[in-house]
Amino acid sequence: MAATTEVEKKNLEEEAEQVVNPWEVSSKGKIDYDKLIDRFGCQKLDDALISRLERLTSRTPHVFLRRHVFFAHRDFAEILDAYERGDKFYLYTGRGPSSESLHLGHLIPFMFTKYLQDVFKVPLVIQLTDDEKFFWKNLTVEECRRLARENAKDIIACGFDISKTFIFSDFNYVGGSFYKNMCEVASRVTYNQAVGIFGFAGEDHIGKVSFPPVQAVPSFPTSFPHLFSGKENLRCLIPCAIDQDPYFRMTRDVAPRMGFNKPALIESLFFPALQGETGKMSASDPNSAIYVTDSAKDIKNKVNKHAFSGGQDSVEKHRQLGANLEVDIPIKYLTFFLEDDAELEHIKKEYGEGRMLTGEVKQRLIQVLTEIVERHRRARASVTEEMVDAFMAVRPLPYMFD
Amino acid sequence: MAATTEVEKKNLEEEAEQVVNPWEVSSKGKIDYDKLIDRFGCQKLDDALISRLERLTSRTPHVFLRRHVFFAHRDFAEILDAYERGDKFYLYTGRGPSSESLHLGHLIPFMFTKYLQDVFKVPLVIQLTDDEKFFWKNLTVEECRRLARENAKDIIACGFDISKTFIFSDFNYVGGSFYKNMCEVASRVTYNQAVGIFGFAGEDHIGKVSFPPVQAVPSFPTSFPHLFSGKENLRCLIPCAIDQDPYFRMTRDVAPRMGFNKPALIESLFFPALQGETGKMSASDPNSAIYVTDSAKDIKNKVNKHAFSGGQDSVEKHRQLGANLEVDIPIKYLTFFLEDDAELEHIKKEYGEGRMLTGEVKQRLIQVLTEIVERHRRARASVTEEMVDAFMAVRPLPYMFD
Repeated sequence: MAATTEVEKKNLEEEAEQVVNPWEVSSKGKIDYDKLIDRFGCQKLDDALISRLERLTSRTPHVFLRRHVFFAHRDFAEILDAYERGDKFYLYTGRGPSSESLHLGHLIPFMFTKYLQDVFKVPLVIQLTDDEKFFWKNLTVEECRRLARENAKDIIACGFDISKTFIFSDFNYVGGSFYKNMCEVASRVTYNQAVGIFGFAGEDHIGKVSFPPVQAVPSFPTSFPHLFSGKENLRCLIPCAIDQDPYFRMTRDVAPRMGFNKPALIESLFFPALQGETGKMSASDPNSAIYVTDSAKDIKNKVNKHAFSGGQDSVEKHRQLGANLEVDIPIKYLTFFLEDDAELEHIKKEYGEGRMLTGEVKQRLIQVLTEIVERHRRARASVTEEMVDAFMAVRPLPYMFD
Repeated sequence: MAATTEVEKKNLEEEAEQVVNPWEVSSKGKIDYDKLIDRFGCQKLDDALISRLERLTSRTPHVFLRRHVFFAHRDFAEILDAYERGDKFYLYTGRGPSSESLHLGHLIPFMFTKYLQDVFKVPLVIQLTDDEKFFWKNLTVEECRRLARENAKDIIACGFDISKTFIFSDFNYVGGSFYKNMCEVASRVTYNQAVGIFGFAGEDHIGKVSFPPVQAVPSFPTSFPHLFSGKENLRCLIPCAIDQDPYFRMTRDVAPRMGFNKPALIESLFFPALQGETGKMSASDPNSAIYVTDSAKDIKNKVNKHAFSGGQDSVEKHRQLGANLEVDIPIKYLTFFLEDDAELEHIKKEYGEGRMLTGEVKQRLIQVLTEIVERHRRARASVTEEMVDAFMAVRPLPYMFD
């Protein structure tokens, strides 16, 4: 893992300014994503690559691509090469089930993964890391397993194709070929390297040290013999937020030494808190995020009261100077969720030049969010226990590439 | 784990003189077992306890008890208390499958465990730590799994009762309730504590750091829901060589915090090498041990050529001074394997006083060993693949306490 040493050095230097790892995202000011790309050693997802994706799939790129929400990658070009040649690949994403109800930020990787599954017509594995949450949060195993199942319902509600999707929780699925691969990974990462990548301390329990291989091995097709038997060379593409990059830097280092392709990544920004853009949302402050369980009234109140505005203090000043779109949270949220490019441009122009007021922008955002949350609520309400069992059954997926 | 700190300090002090841990046993002179008991914090298995066992079971204690081969314990008195009250318990032992054929030292815990199963009529779980050997030896996963299965045949040949015995390999069985318990243990042991107990270094891979919980959790009945469902308070007794004590010190520390009984232990000496008693036998020197695959001729050659003798240089001197029984390997081996107490005493007296010569003692030892190895070979030859599958099937054992 010598290749990561330089990167890890920078990591330490910049740590004072911004901390981004799978368990903490914090920053003195706005997250500097360019620095993060540089520090992590991934690539910027540029317009040329997005255009190529559009050409290959004959579909308008997802709004998260057009607006650069998914902004970084590793080897995504190689995935497109493979797709162009007619080679198959599979998608892997996941969630650490630490809370009962998800907020909109949690849905982003799943909304995007559904798009990828639709356009590429490929199988998908979704890992629920209930063991990780047991190791990091003060929760019992049983509570983590329960949350995994509840979260699975929200994930299923995103509309994944059951004929192409396998959802699993670690407490249920670790074992057999999956455990074998965990051991293969673990034997190729020293404790010192793990400390360099993840920042473990001597007082941390050994569960934390043991965990990274668990999140690494869904990247390898042999971890799923019921799906990919005989397809050891199948490539894997991982859509995730960029705080998960450390796991996959480790995985990509180990992969060739285990005879596998390195997993490719496509990585997103963090969805900002209502109060402003200094990191991920805080689960401890319910007013910092819109939850998928919020009512229309909750959403209206939260946006009106808590969404940080880039507008001016007085109407007069606003008409004169316009809003500061760089810090305006309603504009950020619309950038994530308003599908219509022309309308978004129009709002940004009118608001930025002072002709539109914060209240009007917030009004539009409330409509957009209420619609998304309403749609999700209806979809989730129709997810039965039987559907959860069906998605989580260890079974072959004979039509997964159709 | 504050309780072990003092012990660990002594550990470091004495490390220079003798190293005893699950992966290394070495000593400048003879292993000082009294010091080891003191350092590890276990108890001496005294004659009073052996007499009590004899009374309770109405059976002559096993030769390994009469000769103090099993010489140390933790909470063995509590196991006898439980047995006296009519409470049930189960046995747990294991093997790290790192070599094709076992030597006599490897058979000792299994011979003894069979005796315990016979007299107490209790269920037994046998763990084959193929993952451990993958982590510590330069072997592939597939090779470790193969060796586990081959070793299972030797273990079955020791005569275990299939209606009371479950044999499992980690690569096959880790998962589910077993994995859940692994995580519960891992979350209660810090890296610093693991370093204190096992001596891990920063350059060691994280697989080694992850392993101790795997060997810990067979001590807990909930790791075997197909056997012990609803019996969360079942006690566990572990017969093993004393180098395994570090694992179970860790386990005993964690057990009450997980709501389980601490596992009890009954711990053996190391079986000495033919060349003399400074540690365990070396797998790299075939002449240091008698293997269960050795022919009668091999045994004769090995004993005659390599067994270290405490006899004198010349017959005259020997008749005059007698043999030094303290260092004489044929006498040590007969102490382990010659059933007849009177005969052993007779040989020791005659040999120690110079009336019996080394050659005669070796002659008797060759007979004893050849008989054991012959019996084992016949028993192993009759073990079929189907029997291995049957012993290793994850199944209830309805008659396990009968």
